[in-house]
Amino acid sequence: MRTGKEYIDSLRKRNIKVYVKGQLLNSEEVVDHPFIRGHVNSAALTFELAHDPAYEELMTVKSHLTGKKINRFTHIHHSVDDLIKKVKMLRMISQKTGTCYQRCVGFDAMNALYSTTFEMDAKLGTTYHEKMKKFLQYVQDNDIMVAGAMTDPKGDRSLRPGQQADPDMFVHIVEKNDKGIVIRGAKAHMTGMVNSHEMLIMPTMGMSEEDKDYAVCCALPVDAPGVLHIFGRQTNDDRKCEGEIDQGNAQYGIVGGECLTVLENVFVPWERVFMCGEVEFSGMLVERFACYHRQNYGGCKGGVSDVVIGATAVMADISGYGKAAHVKEKINEMIHLTETLYACSIACSAEGKPTAAGSYYVDPLLANVGKHNVTRLIYDIDRLAQDVGGGLTATLPSESDLNNPDIGKYVDKYFKGVASVPTEDRLRIARLIENMTGGTALVESMHGAGSPQAQKVMYSKLSNLESKKKMALHIAGIKPKAVEQPPATKGK
Amino acid sequence: MRTGKEYIDSLRKRNIKVYVKGQLLNSEEVVDHPFIRGHVNSAALTFELAHDPAYEELMTVKSHLTGKKINRFTHIHHSVDDLIKKVKMLRMISQKTGTCYQRCVGFDAMNALYSTTFEMDAKLGTTYHEKMKKFLQYVQDNDIMVAGAMTDPKGDRSLRPGQQADPDMFVHIVEKNDKGIVIRGAKAHMTGMVNSHEMLIMPTMGMSEEDKDYAVCCALPVDAPGVLHIFGRQTNDDRKCEGEIDQGNAQYGIVGGECLTVLENVFVPWERVFMCGEVEFSGMLVERFACYHRQNYGGCKGGVSDVVIGATAVMADISGYGKAAHVKEKINEMIHLTETLYACSIACSAEGKPTAAGSYYVDPLLANVGKHNVTRLIYDIDRLAQDVGGGLTATLPSESDLNNPDIGKYVDKYFKGVASVPTEDRLRIARLIENMTGGTALVESMHGAGSPQAQKVMYSKLSNLESKKKMALHIAGIKPKAVEQPPATKGK
Amino acid sequence: MRTGKEYIDSLRKRNIKVYVKGQLLNSEEVVDHPFIRGHVNSAALTFELAHDPAYEELMTVKSHLTGKKINRFTHIHHSVDDLIKKVKMLRMISQKTGTCYQRCVGFDAMNALYSTTFEMDAKLGTTYHEKMKKFLQYVQDNDIMVAGAMTDPKGDRSLRPGQQADPDMFVHIVEKNDKGIVIRGAKAHMTGMVNSHEMLIMPTMGMSEEDKDYAVCCALPVDAPGVLHIFGRQTNDDRKCEGEIDQGNAQYGIVGGECLTVLENVFVPWERVFMCGEVEFSGMLVERFACYHRQNYGGCKGGVSDVVIGATAVMADISGYGKAAHVKEKINEMIHLTETLYACSIACSAEGKPTAAGSYYVDPLLANVGKHNVTRLIYDIDRLAQDVGGGLTATLPSESDLNNPDIGKYVDKYFKGVASVPTEDRLRIARLIENMTGGTALVESMHGAGSPQAQKVMYSKLSNLESKKKMALHIAGIKPKAVEQPPATKGK
Amino acid sequence: MRTGKEYIDSLRKRNIKVYVKGQLLNSEEVVDHPFIRGHVNSAALTFELAHDPAYEELMTVKSHLTGKKINRFTHIHHSVDDLIKKVKMLRMISQKTGTCYQRCVGFDAMNALYSTTFEMDAKLGTTYHEKMKKFLQYVQDNDIMVAGAMTDPKGDRSLRPGQQADPDMFVHIVEKNDKGIVIRGAKAHMTGMVNSHEMLIMPTMGMSEEDKDYAVCCALPVDAPGVLHIFGRQTNDDRKCEGEIDQGNAQYGIVGGECLTVLENVFVPWERVFMCGEVEFSGMLVERFACYHRQNYGGCKGGVSDVVIGATAVMADISGYGKAAHVKEKINEMIHLTETLYACSIACSAEGKPTAAGSYYVDPLLANVGKHNVTRLIYDIDRLAQDVGGGLTATLPSESDLNNPDIGKYVDKYFKGVASVPTEDRLRIARLIENMTGGTALVESMHGAGSPQAQKVMYSKLSNLESKKKMALHIAGIKPKAVEQPPATKGK
Repeated sequence: MRTGKEYIDSLRKRNIKVYVKGQLLNSEEVVDHPFIRGHVNSAALTFELAHDPAYEELMTVKSHLTGKKINRFTHIHHSVDDLIKKVKMLRMISQKTGTCYQRCVGFDAMNALYSTTFEMDAKLGTTYHEKMKKFLQYVQDNDIMVAGAMTDPKGDRSLRPGQQADPDMFVHIVEKNDKGIVIRGAKAHMTGMVNSHEMLIMPTMGMSEEDKDYAVCCALPVDAPGVLHIFGRQTNDDRKCEGEIDQGNAQYGIVGGECLTVLENVFVPWERVFMCGEVEFSGMLVERFACYHRQNYGGCKGGVSDVVIGATAVMADISGYGKAAHVKEKINEMIHLTETLYACSIACSAEGKPTAAGSYYVDPLLANVGKHNVTRLIYDIDRLAQDVGGGLTATLPSESDLNNPDIGKYVDKYFKGVASVPTEDRLRIARLIENMTGGTALVESMHGAGSPQAQKVMYSKLSNLESKKKMALHIAGIKPKAVEQPPATKGK
Repeated sequence: MRTGKEYIDSLRKRNIKVYVKGQLLNSEEVVDHPFIRGHVNSAALTFELAHDPAYEELMTVKSHLTGKKINRFTHIHHSVDDLIKKVKMLRMISQKTGTCYQRCVGFDAMNALYSTTFEMDAKLGTTYHEKMKKFLQYVQDNDIMVAGAMTDPKGDRSLRPGQQADPDMFVHIVEKNDKGIVIRGAKAHMTGMVNSHEMLIMPTMGMSEEDKDYAVCCALPVDAPGVLHIFGRQTNDDRKCEGEIDQGNAQYGIVGGECLTVLENVFVPWERVFMCGEVEFSGMLVERFACYHRQNYGGCKGGVSDVVIGATAVMADISGYGKAAHVKEKINEMIHLTETLYACSIACSAEGKPTAAGSYYVDPLLANVGKHNVTRLIYDIDRLAQDVGGGLTATLPSESDLNNPDIGKYVDKYFKGVASVPTEDRLRIARLIENMTGGTALVESMHGAGSPQAQKVMYSKLSNLESKKKMALHIAGIKPKAVEQPPATKGK
Repeated sequence: MRTGKEYIDSLRKRNIKVYVKGQLLNSEEVVDHPFIRGHVNSAALTFELAHDPAYEELMTVKSHLTGKKINRFTHIHHSVDDLIKKVKMLRMISQKTGTCYQRCVGFDAMNALYSTTFEMDAKLGTTYHEKMKKFLQYVQDNDIMVAGAMTDPKGDRSLRPGQQADPDMFVHIVEKNDKGIVIRGAKAHMTGMVNSHEMLIMPTMGMSEEDKDYAVCCALPVDAPGVLHIFGRQTNDDRKCEGEIDQGNAQYGIVGGECLTVLENVFVPWERVFMCGEVEFSGMLVERFACYHRQNYGGCKGGVSDVVIGATAVMADISGYGKAAHVKEKINEMIHLTETLYACSIACSAEGKPTAAGSYYVDPLLANVGKHNVTRLIYDIDRLAQDVGGGLTATLPSESDLNNPDIGKYVDKYFKGVASVPTEDRLRIARLIENMTGGTALVESMHGAGSPQAQKVMYSKLSNLESKKKMALHIAGIKPKAVEQPPATKGK
Repeated sequence: MRTGKEYIDSLRKRNIKVYVKGQLLNSEEVVDHPFIRGHVNSAALTFELAHDPAYEELMTVKSHLTGKKINRFTHIHHSVDDLIKKVKMLRMISQKTGTCYQRCVGFDAMNALYSTTFEMDAKLGTTYHEKMKKFLQYVQDNDIMVAGAMTDPKGDRSLRPGQQADPDMFVHIVEKNDKGIVIRGAKAHMTGMVNSHEMLIMPTMGMSEEDKDYAVCCALPVDAPGVLHIFGRQTNDDRKCEGEIDQGNAQYGIVGGECLTVLENVFVPWERVFMCGEVEFSGMLVERFACYHRQNYGGCKGGVSDVVIGATAVMADISGYGKAAHVKEKINEMIHLTETLYACSIACSAEGKPTAAGSYYVDPLLANVGKHNVTRLIYDIDRLAQDVGGGLTATLPSESDLNNPDIGKYVDKYFKGVASVPTEDRLRIARLIENMTGGTALVESMHGAGSPQAQKVMYSKLSNLESKKKMALHIAGIKPKAVEQPPATKGK
């Protein structure tokens, strides 16, 4: 298993093309760019903590392929315990970073692909599962960081892939030959991509027969020829080029460092192709990935919210209102909401079941319920943090003002809370709250792992409404026959 | 294990004093009183389903005392799996009854007492645990229904037990002799009491040294000399004395059939006394009972909500608006909320841990989180049911109108929805929604297992806020020392 | 203007057919039936208070037709001040009754009809407005209580009136002759109908050409030949046949005493016909009525909520927890929600505008916003009342238990709160909270004046979304042309 | 009345000391600094629109002092109509700027001071009111922009001003002489201060006798000797130094351009001193200012939300999902919430009453209700905007990427929505949503005009809970005497 340092060093050896604010970065120095460094640091923790005996049980596991001790982020879940440990690992790391460390996306993609290729092969006689296992062993043996790559740009959302004015709005196969395939398109919102080794391309939704060329799944290096990455802006990203305090979380940054990854006729050899036109399995792959990924949010956002709660409580203490009844009530409410999120992640794990391939899959309904709660409750948690945190997160002067010889004394004097605590500490906590509760951080809770409607759509499918109707009929003393299927009505 | 019928027959043999609306019931016929019969029916299901092979795994278990197969409601949890099965059992039964079946209260009381007496004995050298095990074996061998009895009337809530104008506002010991103790007071909101065999008295809160006589825990038959029960009113209880339709759920009723149980100098022999003045363990007993009991609510209310969802969906279908987008969205929202409750119960079970006695205890923080969500989300679920269900639940004529030879035809004609479904079926569903979403049913979700503040109080204790503060300080780059403990401030 | 007593006496002179629980009542004694008496009492206050000098300004006004002083409930609004006074009058009466007094429905119907007939005549050359004014003068001169009658049974909601299997699911004209018209069908959820003098029939929605016979508006006595009324059940209605305490609000009851009114080939003379097939004006009439009626809810429910808040605060005081911080916070939240409702009613009145007829119409968007808030916030208010009110509202014994010579002493002893307050007072407050926060009362807040979706539908129409889009384009620096109307997309 | 250009020109003539990010700006160029220019532009609109005939009625009014036509922002309200026009004016300007234009703060301060000085003089025999009127006439005649300056740094919130370790945590009088007073301290979160002409200093809370020197109210130029301003950071402020698109709202910016204003022994002549130690009137002044200021939020945030709604709807349209049912429902919900805010502002204005001075004051309870709703509903509105707006607001590349010759084509290609709309327009709308829904904008809705608890505290005072209790007692049939005042209880 790599250490954090080895991971960072390995990234320097890539020949990756990354653009930030219109500039192509030097490939070796990508990890050092101020916009990117924090994301690298947080991802590095997923390597480093695997060497910490205190976290051995959460961070490492024995490979079912090789029997070797591996980093859990490269593991295929083989028990309910694995699923639960994943959630606990995520919460623990988030408590240290206060932000995303990105590595779950590839982790989830590999788990989704593992069982899907097994079932695909069983039904269609293909050989994807063996190829996938070889890729997996490569990932495990070399402690590879894999970026899961699902979301396409999608263009006009009312049109299917093949109906778009521009055929590249979804990644698709433009050529097949005896060595492999050539793909074209782009993947948007790519978390951790610029500091990964490999990417795992997946279709963005269930495809129908007419969109066969869009049903493609494959793995390739992030620096393969034809690949380039355009780094996205984040809230207050420019502050990363200045001092430390105003960043709020100077070491780890915010969210996952997303980019647009452009695939300009990229070649992928057959041994890394795991789906190629099997449209009937595209939906299964998407759904499994989505559910594994939605499982995470009560873990990682739970941990992030722990930090928000802590920061809020510290701000109250050092401003002199930590003992006010309404403040304590608000902090308790933040705890309530945070643990509700966590409960959903634990529950969908505890209710996990084995797949045909022997790997374990979360309860899909509860995984969706958890993510859907994240799209709401994080907003409430952050609202309460901003309430208790005070208006200063919106009006604090800059770090340069604090350092200015003429006016630094005023900043120091007038932003002090209780007399015993240095003003700089209060500024730091205010900036941390600012960093964690606005802009990019909120939007990620909304749209990461699927926007709210994506979960709601699953409820209709997963909740077995018909059986609930029968329960009601039974208790109401109604014979099911008469009511069950009222004939289709005419009219509007 | 008793069958449902054997359970009901056994109740007739009691010499119990129950008053309903000012009338003392004939002891043998208590189970037949229209106000009580539904609660008996639902409790009987907890016996009957234990004999159904389909539910054997959920409903039965091997006694850790005797190795015999017992009804799970008399079991002491000995694994996470036991805790999870409890939740699933509760949801399943609720889906059949649409209401409370009461037996979890005694179940939870016995589990709380089991580990508490063990720890009490270990610390104080008492012998309560062995006595408790004997009582437990009696319960298991005879498939006894035990009513958990915790809530005292409490009088003036700003005063402690010993400060009350009337010393009986909390149950207390008035005499001790060589055979046993004599207690006096009352227990309020006693769920399932009038159709139980035994009651298990517990203190209602942690007691301090000055309230030593109030720290009492013991078991006694519900028909012991000096005991009488005054049955509480429920929403629309008088309809139970008329026809079937207007009741909504004529077979199982609503909530748990609560009563006030008066204890007028009641003797309890020493072998049934499990706490007698050990004030330092009263808080532990209360907290364990509360957490076991709060664990349930995502199970039982989850199942109840399944029925509400089903009834709502049926009403939409048979009224012709089942396919409207906003209706489907509302039903999906009800599913979302219901599964959120369920997730909390599963999660606190999955995170259960062994006690010193070897029995398993739920995660107390998550158990509280679950119950607290019930105090809110059930109101949202029921609001949506009333929204989709339509105004007719508030204005439907009576069953007698439907049966009236002159006007029955109008009721039948004008309350019809889609033409193919009999009007009576629509009335039945409307009455079921009415029954399940108003009055008593709502209040029970609020106050059963403790009112909202009871959970909030636990958050401060259980959530380890100090560790969260340290996380925030670390990420904000602040040295903990300076901030951690600001000196006490003066002034208000 | 009639006094309350004169109003009640006048009701005895009707020859009305009312069925309650399958029994046809003696016409003279309708007002004395326990199910009905409370509603009569609250309606009587709308007459009685007009003679109280303290309320003269709110309750009375000068008729624009005759210049005479009239009861405001028979007035046509002629200023913003009239609209605001209406809201204040409603809140004031609700504070005295704690429930509905029904008379606003006919009040709103007359106001809607007044301006609609004026515009109908102007466009179509009909003479409805003059006829309507004659009816109005009759109402004003005789202080008539008019029931507004809009909601049809509607059968299969996915079908239009003419598509229903049974043509009577919406009231329609079955015959026209030189004396008048004959109508047939029913009106559901008729508030205050059984204690009114006249009813004003309106169509339930905008009609299209094919449903011409359903576009009918007319006035007729509630005891006209062919009319019969089937009284609806309410939560705990049977308690009205017993003592006083358990009713909660023995004098005024709960909600408005709704019934199903059956119209079996009822003749209406031409002078009382105000719409007869003019489908293009049916939508206008419905919308105006709906908006006038939705205006009320922040007034009447505001006043009702004042009583709920007061009852909750009293319960807290007399139980000893009135000073707890979380209780005070909850009561403040109830106040916040109540005043939000009131603000909407005041605002839609303050923004009222004159119609072509010279009468004043509320701001329709804000009126809908107010009612929509009622469908949510009342549930929150009542949830908080049940929270603070305590579990006893769900488990209190009956009044007969309190009066029983053997056990009355226990009820008195164990339901006491602070020592100085008689237990009976605590029971009364608990019963009032029970009465006001469950069942029928909730459903009425949801569906009275239109269910939530009815308001949401209006938003699309009334909020001028296109202008908001232009504002955003302007600020974003986008030329409107390119974006404004993206061409229709193909596909799903 | 000044035009917008005249206003900006006048600002250049000040000798003001403003620091931005550690740099002292050239006084003449303060208005041109990229961090400040947007705020100047939006404030300039408050001058410019007064010359637009379309807005004459909203923007201008006749001075009650001179009879001359003045800008409404310098007016003292003299009718309900004035109060309502203020709200409509604010909503209208916000719809044009999408952000704060700052001028209401001084407007509200002057109105609060007008009636308070009148009552102070009446009671104490002081002559503040005449001096205030002279200041007011100066403001009206010269169309002065006045910054209201209330919030002190406050230090340790558990201590009163005089108890602080540093006596300057609240502005206080350090010297009085025959020409005037000398004050010292700072004012935080000063909206619009750096582009105002004058500031109006007020105490931040009701003072007690021991804090006499802190009860000070006075007016002084923003560039008076001893005054300096440290400009606060906002979300993404650095983007203002780059291109236009990434700013979202390049012309008007975000919120109000807040600063810390330091007062280092500043002299104020007696003719500009309006309170000097009269502690008993400090609370009245604070409360009046707070209520006038809270009145605004449904107007200005209503208009801001109109722009958010419009931007959200445009994004949906140009991405191809504008017709999806769930999207339309969410936009309707945003409308509902926005109009609820507006209704509160209209209502507190419509219920306005004359003060002793003849000026009009809003209904204080409803004004607080409105602001309190803003602290919640804006978060919901913005959450929905981020939901419908899509994840791209968190991951969009920079404007420089769009302009890069190598990769601009990819940004253009892959961020396109429906084919007919230029990608740049979609980027602009996304950036506008980003700008308006995160960070500073949210915090301002929370804390501007007082944090949530500030309103809740007022509810207890303003809502007349005692009268509500009496209503409940009356309806419950309880004699008030017994219950009204339970004797004080002992114990905790």
